[in-house]
Amino acid sequence: MTIPGKPPAPTDQVHHIGIAVADLDYSINFYKSIFGLEPGPIIVREELGVRGCFIAIGSTNLELLQGTGPKSSISIHIEEKGEGLHHICFEVEGIEEKLKTLEELGIDLRDKIPRKGLMGGDIGFLSPSAAKGVLIELAEHEH
Amino acid sequence: MTIPGKPPAPTDQVHHIGIAVADLDYSINFYKSIFGLEPGPIIVREELGVRGCFIAIGSTNLELLQGTGPKSSISIHIEEKGEGLHHICFEVEGIEEKLKTLEELGIDLRDKIPRKGLMGGDIGFLSPSAAKGVLIELAEHEH
Repeated sequence: MTIPGKPPAPTDQVHHIGIAVADLDYSINFYKSIFGLEPGPIIVREELGVRGCFIAIGSTNLELLQGTGPKSSISIHIEEKGEGLHHICFEVEGIEEKLKTLEELGIDLRDKIPRKGLMGGDIGFLSPSAAKGVLIELAEHEH
Repeated sequence: MTIPGKPPAPTDQVHHIGIAVADLDYSINFYKSIFGLEPGPIIVREELGVRGCFIAIGSTNLELLQGTGPKSSISIHIEEKGEGLHHICFEVEGIEEKLKTLEELGIDLRDKIPRKGLMGGDIGFLSPSAAKGVLIELAEHEH
């Protein structure tokens, strides 16, 4: 692995922890009734194949994700690996430049240029193989 | 699922995100060199079968965990499911009471009474089946 002189993609927040669920309503109810966590609105993004919900907890969020159909990447993930923790998302500044730098360092990327995420921010995923099985998302939201 | 009138185990922080790794030194170096994240000291707890390291990020932490031998639960997890996201830990107050309440609500627990975790705080795990494949740890640290 290339070790840069300076960190190419410094990050200081976990924006969210993505969780793949088979039944969004059940899981929203679980985190609310068992841990007192208040869910945000349900967001449906057919073009991403995702029905999701953010649940704020401290300065981060849980992101519950259900596939909208059997071809959704979330549904395929659940089919292969079951429900559970899916990815972590780091909040960054200058995501386009960060992804470019990661690519130059030889980090395998799913998204070489940012695309719109569930919350409307710019996002990009690294390949799971890049971080030893941890699927990492970078995101940049307007503040 | 029983839905209590009041949330029995309110929590307002993710204390850490646990990650199972096969090579702790490699992964520490990865998060440092790629994302500029500073690792804490390496902690070895033979009785838990774990060699670990906390990496602070914002108000939460990544907890990298390597098994100390093939019988370690982390090594077994990696053998069965590969490296990657392992659990999330919610910081709570009054963990003993919280675990008791969860049990009364019919939530399946790995630890019915708190035990000492990697950082010396009191911790207890729910069963992965309790939260649809998400392994949840509760922890109470002195502030």
